Amino acid sequence: MSDDSILKKFGERVRQLRKARGFSQQSFAATCGLDRTYIGGIERGERNVALRNMEAIAKSLGLSVSELTTGL
Amino acid sequence: MSDDSILKKFGERVRQLRKARGFSQQSFAATCGLDRTYIGGIERGERNVALRNMEAIAKSLGLSVSELTTGL
Repeated sequence: MSDDSILKKFGERVRQLRKARGFSQQSFAATCGLDRTYIGGIERGERNVALRNMEAIAKSLGLSVSELTTGL
Repeated sequence: MSDDSILKKFGERVRQLRKARGFSQQSFAATCGLDRTYIGGIERGERNVALRNMEAIAKSLGLSVSELTTGL
């Protein structure tokens, strides 16, 4: 079985990119149309994020899904 | 709300890459550790695939998740 390392890597990447753009978790969640606690869970690698939410996150960061997942 | 176009684009990309590597849906599903009907649903854009399954699909294609999602 897969361990959760890709979820942790994805979460770290989201956190890094969010902070680099000056978003709080709250403002970022609102921009994505997602809940703040859900964004927190993603950033901690606790959420197995699906493609539509990845798209919402990528758009809020001005990136494609491919760019968002670079280096995972 | 997001429509399902990213799911359709992702499904088309999986189908194209799977066929280019000579996999049937059955053999590809087995390589991914997923069910054949689930792979079929992905390829038809009916499944909001999550990151761990995207990773399994990418690995079976010899790609990173970023490469798998190029052009979405």
